[in-house]
Amino acid sequence: MTRFRYLSFLTDYGLDDGFVAACHGVAARIAPHAGVIDVTHLVPPGDVRRGAAVLAQTVPYLPPAVHVAVVDPGVGTARRGIAVAAGGSIFVGPDNGLLSWAVTAAGGAARAFSLTNRELWLGQVTATFHGRDIFMPVAAHLAADAELASAGTEIDVADLVALPPPERTIRDSTAEGEVLTVDRFGNLQLAITASDAADIGVTPGGTVVVQYAQVRLAVPYRDMFGAVAPGELVAFTDSAGLVSLAVNGGNAALRLGLVPGARVLIAAVS
Amino acid sequence: MTRFRYLSFLTDYGLDDGFVAACHGVAARIAPHAGVIDVTHLVPPGDVRRGAAVLAQTVPYLPPAVHVAVVDPGVGTARRGIAVAAGGSIFVGPDNGLLSWAVTAAGGAARAFSLTNRELWLGQVTATFHGRDIFMPVAAHLAADAELASAGTEIDVADLVALPPPERTIRDSTAEGEVLTVDRFGNLQLAITASDAADIGVTPGGTVVVQYAQVRLAVPYRDMFGAVAPGELVAFTDSAGLVSLAVNGGNAALRLGLVPGARVLIAAVS
Amino acid sequence: MTRFRYLSFLTDYGLDDGFVAACHGVAARIAPHAGVIDVTHLVPPGDVRRGAAVLAQTVPYLPPAVHVAVVDPGVGTARRGIAVAAGGSIFVGPDNGLLSWAVTAAGGAARAFSLTNRELWLGQVTATFHGRDIFMPVAAHLAADAELASAGTEIDVADLVALPPPERTIRDSTAEGEVLTVDRFGNLQLAITASDAADIGVTPGGTVVVQYAQVRLAVPYRDMFGAVAPGELVAFTDSAGLVSLAVNGGNAALRLGLVPGARVLIAAVS
Repeated sequence: MTRFRYLSFLTDYGLDDGFVAACHGVAARIAPHAGVIDVTHLVPPGDVRRGAAVLAQTVPYLPPAVHVAVVDPGVGTARRGIAVAAGGSIFVGPDNGLLSWAVTAAGGAARAFSLTNRELWLGQVTATFHGRDIFMPVAAHLAADAELASAGTEIDVADLVALPPPERTIRDSTAEGEVLTVDRFGNLQLAITASDAADIGVTPGGTVVVQYAQVRLAVPYRDMFGAVAPGELVAFTDSAGLVSLAVNGGNAALRLGLVPGARVLIAAVS
Repeated sequence: MTRFRYLSFLTDYGLDDGFVAACHGVAARIAPHAGVIDVTHLVPPGDVRRGAAVLAQTVPYLPPAVHVAVVDPGVGTARRGIAVAAGGSIFVGPDNGLLSWAVTAAGGAARAFSLTNRELWLGQVTATFHGRDIFMPVAAHLAADAELASAGTEIDVADLVALPPPERTIRDSTAEGEVLTVDRFGNLQLAITASDAADIGVTPGGTVVVQYAQVRLAVPYRDMFGAVAPGELVAFTDSAGLVSLAVNGGNAALRLGLVPGARVLIAAVS
Repeated sequence: MTRFRYLSFLTDYGLDDGFVAACHGVAARIAPHAGVIDVTHLVPPGDVRRGAAVLAQTVPYLPPAVHVAVVDPGVGTARRGIAVAAGGSIFVGPDNGLLSWAVTAAGGAARAFSLTNRELWLGQVTATFHGRDIFMPVAAHLAADAELASAGTEIDVADLVALPPPERTIRDSTAEGEVLTVDRFGNLQLAITASDAADIGVTPGGTVVVQYAQVRLAVPYRDMFGAVAPGELVAFTDSAGLVSLAVNGGNAALRLGLVPGARVLIAAVS
C-alpha cells in the first residue's frame, strides 16, 4: 500500500550543490512511486519566516502530500524533528516554526510526532544534513507504507513551536502590516488581507494612502497592476489574497526601498 | 483516455518563490499522469521576445506535449488566453506573441481557441496569477481528457498575435542580424542562419568579418569554439543552426559589449 | 526490458536557457519510463573539478542510474565520449576526468566504452551541444534497452582520463589539504577526512589550529556548527565526512577569504 503519491520539498539548500539531489535520491530509493514537487530551494539561508510564508502560500495548491521543509539554522542542536498531520497531508521538518503557518493554513495540527524512530532514518546520520539523513527518509517512508505513528513519540500539538503570525494591526480607519515577502518582480506583499482593506474602506477602484517611515503616498488601488501606466505604482490584491504594491513593468521594492519586515500603514483617502 | 503524457512549462516566475510549484501542484491534481518538463523559469521579467526564442529553440527536442508558457506583462488586462494546435502539440499561454515563434517552428497553427470556458479554470481566479489559475489548469485538462475545442471559442489563426521575426537582412555579400540571445556562457547567438552565411560565402574554415557600431573584427569561422586557442574569439554554427560568436573559455558578450537586440553585420573576407 | 529506472544529470548549462530542458526532452522521447534526477546545472562554466566533486559526493545517495555529466570545455575537439560501468550504475560523459572521482567512489570502473556507435546518437549532431545530441540520447538508450557494449568500442579502463585527486598531505602532527568546495552557506570543505584529522589528534570536542597564508587561528572542533555561538567560527565533520570550516549563521568563505583550491593546514593544539 502506498499512502501518498507526492512529496513536496522546500529548503534553503540552494541549487549550486548536490544537496537537493541527494535528498531526491534518498526519496527515490525509499519511495520510487512518489513524485517530488520542489517548492523552492532558494529560501535565504536560515530565513525561517520566509520559508514559512512561501510554504503556507503554496501548499493549498499542491495535492495531498508529505511536505518536507528544511530551513534549519539549529541543525544538530536540541531542536527536535517533527511529523505533523494536518488537512489530509503530513508535514515533516524541524520544530522551529517553519511548518507552523502552513499547518495553520491546512486547518491546524491533528496529531504530531517527534522523529525518534531511527529505523526510518538513514543508517548513518551526520550532524549537519538532517534533510538527507532524517527528514527525507522519514517522509519517504511515510509516503510509502509507514504509519504516521511509527515516526516516533507522539507529542501534544500545543507544544509545537509556532512562529508569531505576521504583524498586522487593524484600526478603525487604518491597517498596518509588515512586508511579508518580496517576489522576483519586486512586488511587495503586505500582511494585510483584502478583507482587512475593505473593512477600512480601501477597495479596488479607489485610492489608498500608503505610509512608511517619513513617506506618504497616494496610490491607485486596482484589480491588477496592468491597470496603471507602465512605470506607475499601484496597489492590488495579489494571488494570495493580500494587499500588495507593484510598479507596472518595474520593481516596487527598489522604488520604495522596502524590505521584508518593514511596517507599512494603509488608509482610505479621506 | 489521456491525450498527452507531457506538459512543458516556461515562465518568468523565477525560482525564489513558490509560484512555479503552485502551478506544478495544479497540474498534479488535474493530470497526475503527466510529467512536467520545465523549460526555464528564468526568462527576464516581462521579456516576451526572450521567452519566445527559448521556447522555439527547445520545443523541437521535447516530446509531443501541452506546452504552457507564461511571460505575461499584460496579465489581467484585455489580452486573451489561447490554446493553439501545431505540429502534434498544443501551446497554451497569453496571446501576446510569446508562443508565435515556437508555433511557427512546429509547422504553424492548425487551430486556435480563446480560453473562455471557465469550467477548465480553477474555481477562484485572481487577476495577477493566470499561470496558476487559468493556463496550467486548462493545459492539464487538455493533457488529461478534455478536447481542444472545449477550451473556448475558436478563433481565426490569422488573428493570433505574432512577434515580428528576429531582424535579419541578407544582401549579396553581407548578412546583418540582431543578437537573438546570450546564453550562460556569454555566447552571442545572431539571427543569421548557417545557410544565410553560406549564401554570402561565409563557411567553416574561413574567416568572417564582424561589424557592429564602430567595430570591425576578422574572426575565424570554425566548427566549434574549441578549435581556437583559449581566450580567442571565434564564430561558429551553434546548436540551433545559427551563427554565433564565442570566446573559447571566456565570455563573448562581455568581451564585445553586445546585448540582445544589438545589430551585427557579417561578411566574407574579400 | 528496461535496464535503469533513473537517469541523473549534472551540467554547467545553467538554468536561464532551454539547454537542460532540451536534454530532458531527448530523454523523455527515448526512455519515457525513466525519471531524471537533476544533480545540479550550476557548476561554474567549464569547472571540471567542481563538477567532479559534486558528482562524487552526490551519487552515493542516488539510486542505481545512468549518470550523465557534462562539463565539457573541450566539446567538439578530440576528447572522446565515454560510458563507464561502476558499482551497478553507468556513467556517461566526456573523458576529461569529470566522471573519475564518482567512478572511484562507486568502486572503480568495471568496463568502459568509447561512444562511437552513432545509432544511439540523435540523427543530427552539432559540434557544440553533445549533451543533447550524444550523451543524453546514449544514456537514455542505455537506460531503456540497449546493452552497454552497444555504446561503442571497448577501451581499457586504465586509459580513462582521471583527475588528480584533491591535494592533501598528512604528516605526523599536521594535515594539509586544499579547499575542495564552498557551498551556498559559505562553508569551506577541506580535502581532509575526519579520519585524517583523528590520526593527527584532531577530534570533536577539542580545538584545532587552522593555518593558511599568514593566518593562524585556533578554532573549536565540534560535532556541528550549531555548537558555537552565532557568528563564531567552528570546524566540524561535514555531511561528506570531510573536515569543514563554518561560521554559525554566517559565511566562512567570506570571513576567511578562502576559495576552492587554496591550501589549508590543520593541527591539534599542542
